[in-house]
Amino acid sequence: MTKIAIIGFGVVGSGVYEVIRKNAGEITEKAGTEIDIKYILDIRDFSNHPESNLFVNDVNIIAEDEEVSVVVETMGGLEPANTFSRLMLSKGKTVVTSNKELVATYGDELFALASENDCAYYYEASVGGGIPIIRPMKNCLSANRIESVFGILNGTTNYILTRMFTDNVSFESALKEAQEKGYAEKDPTADVDGFDTGKKISILSSMINGEKINHEDVHTEGIRGITLIDTEFAQSFGYSIKLIGSCRRVDDKYSVVVAPMLVKKDSPLAGVNDVFNGIMVCGNMLGDAFFYGRGAGKLPTASAVVADVIDALRSKDISFKAPWTKAIGNVLVPYDKIECAMYVCLKETDDETVAKVCQVFGNDLKIIVKDGYVAFITGKDTISAIDEKLSKINAKVNNKLMIL
Amino acid sequence: MTKIAIIGFGVVGSGVYEVIRKNAGEITEKAGTEIDIKYILDIRDFSNHPESNLFVNDVNIIAEDEEVSVVVETMGGLEPANTFSRLMLSKGKTVVTSNKELVATYGDELFALASENDCAYYYEASVGGGIPIIRPMKNCLSANRIESVFGILNGTTNYILTRMFTDNVSFESALKEAQEKGYAEKDPTADVDGFDTGKKISILSSMINGEKINHEDVHTEGIRGITLIDTEFAQSFGYSIKLIGSCRRVDDKYSVVVAPMLVKKDSPLAGVNDVFNGIMVCGNMLGDAFFYGRGAGKLPTASAVVADVIDALRSKDISFKAPWTKAIGNVLVPYDKIECAMYVCLKETDDETVAKVCQVFGNDLKIIVKDGYVAFITGKDTISAIDEKLSKINAKVNNKLMIL
Repeated sequence: MTKIAIIGFGVVGSGVYEVIRKNAGEITEKAGTEIDIKYILDIRDFSNHPESNLFVNDVNIIAEDEEVSVVVETMGGLEPANTFSRLMLSKGKTVVTSNKELVATYGDELFALASENDCAYYYEASVGGGIPIIRPMKNCLSANRIESVFGILNGTTNYILTRMFTDNVSFESALKEAQEKGYAEKDPTADVDGFDTGKKISILSSMINGEKINHEDVHTEGIRGITLIDTEFAQSFGYSIKLIGSCRRVDDKYSVVVAPMLVKKDSPLAGVNDVFNGIMVCGNMLGDAFFYGRGAGKLPTASAVVADVIDALRSKDISFKAPWTKAIGNVLVPYDKIECAMYVCLKETDDETVAKVCQVFGNDLKIIVKDGYVAFITGKDTISAIDEKLSKINAKVNNKLMIL
Repeated sequence: MTKIAIIGFGVVGSGVYEVIRKNAGEITEKAGTEIDIKYILDIRDFSNHPESNLFVNDVNIIAEDEEVSVVVETMGGLEPANTFSRLMLSKGKTVVTSNKELVATYGDELFALASENDCAYYYEASVGGGIPIIRPMKNCLSANRIESVFGILNGTTNYILTRMFTDNVSFESALKEAQEKGYAEKDPTADVDGFDTGKKISILSSMINGEKINHEDVHTEGIRGITLIDTEFAQSFGYSIKLIGSCRRVDDKYSVVVAPMLVKKDSPLAGVNDVFNGIMVCGNMLGDAFFYGRGAGKLPTASAVVADVIDALRSKDISFKAPWTKAIGNVLVPYDKIECAMYVCLKETDDETVAKVCQVFGNDLKIIVKDGYVAFITGKDTISAIDEKLSKINAKVNNKLMIL
């Protein structure tokens, strides 16, 4: 029997409790040992919980209990999750987390601490919720050099964009709807402005790079600027619009970016709708592999956490290897040097503007002129070169989006 | 340094050689040891190969060499792969295979032999080629009770159906094309009649069941009976047609079947085209997760084999657990007791037939009458009940397909 503790009994933490209780038979068989929840740490009152005897509010009770070998951290946020995780690791307890913010910000230090103390730090649930992505990238694609990873990593924004795209609902209305359904927070900044996706793509990028890629250094754009004009033009050009976190290897650097992008209709990513997530990984031997499922939600995310607990128990005799170490030097391609094709929408339709666009960008452009706008898709170039060309056209840029 | 041998230097075997040579740096880092190919067994002449010194044609040289700890079996077929694999396992050498036929037929015995001899038998590449599916089902979904797994497991038939569906090419022409492109064998029986898919779904079913599910007991239909009439009707009803291997838990039994099925247009499976594979797994906590990629091909499949070799080296201190044991009793739901909705196409269009269909199947059917055919989609019922109803209508059944 293995004793574990859960710290943070919110949505995911209570899901972990539920998964362990519901699938006890399967889990014991897979882990090779029964998993016994000895403590649940939460400062809120759970005296009415059927197992209220498990609840404690002093973290040191868990830290000092040598019987507890694995601690599940499902608090979210930097503090006190960071302090508590360090405490547990320093005591030689393996920590399993769903906390993307903590992994993105201090992952390198927590991995190092785990290595020093002969335990481990697991983080599958921090990206893609219930979708297996961290472990496949680590274990299944291990014979590959990973060339790129990109995808839809945030369910809230994908719900909003799906509503805009398929039902012609405005951004504001779709956001309100998402809030009513509980998909979006009252303050939707973390999701809508791309910061959540930024943390997740920085975790995947750090894995590929082997050294930390700081989420604060990643160029991050959200979806507030997308209007129904853009979704209509995208559709006409044969694309969907998705908020994409993307990391591509370019020689010995990485171009990492979070932005709403035009995604070709026949890409598997274009079919990822509502709150679902989808992640494309490209290995130099495998080619493309695609992973799809529920990127959030209580039980899907909790089942990924419990899979990590099982893995931790099965692998306890294998020494832990840090997936990445601290950042050494800048490995990011500067944003304006990233190469891509772009969708541009200008707020002018006089013949002169159209002529100027053709003159500056070449004649084999795809152009649509409609309702007072000129929309077109450029050839592939650096963003700075595209911007320079745009500055030569005397027209108001209504929107400008990367093509995936 | 770890010494390995490759037995069978065909498409996949030579791919394994290539992956290990090309990604040596990445692989050494992941495996924690350098992988050195000491022998390649193949009875054909490779004296012109740049590393011709590695080739041997006596299996005992490998079996008797204690330095060799992992053997890659990429021969395919039952014999001599079976005899050679048993020989290696009995010598305590871990075997990594891409051989679906061997895993489906003797997997239970080979796993048992591995356990007895304190080594392991790995088989990720036997299903889904390069797509990680075995390891995610084993490790990532380990906190779930898996309720179902189904998908497109054969690239050849998916290529043919895609051509029929999107370009209106007949089965015969599409098959010929697939043969010209090297996707289909001269004798296409294994692919086209569903036997390849049957072996793969029996492997996944056995994993879920924990006891062997014999591929010969699985109801297996191929795609020879699909005509452009069916693809046209399917399209009109909002479906695509795919050859599906499917396993669903029904109480304490499993309904396992291989057949061409109608797949709803908005399912991720409907978007799996050409030679790609796609697999949907449903866990009781996770819900649906979907895996997509190249289901065959030299380097994708080889990279899955090498990932297994790396896993074998990293996990050598963990005792091997057989994913399934020999069959005990019959756990299959008989084919005619499987519950599903069905697409039926009758070769009659007189008003009496249409009236009879409505009378027998109820009035809320979706019916299309066109070009001398009556096509409709039934409600959900057992296959025997649907057949019984059909026998009451005096009309020639042109085709009858399950709805996924």
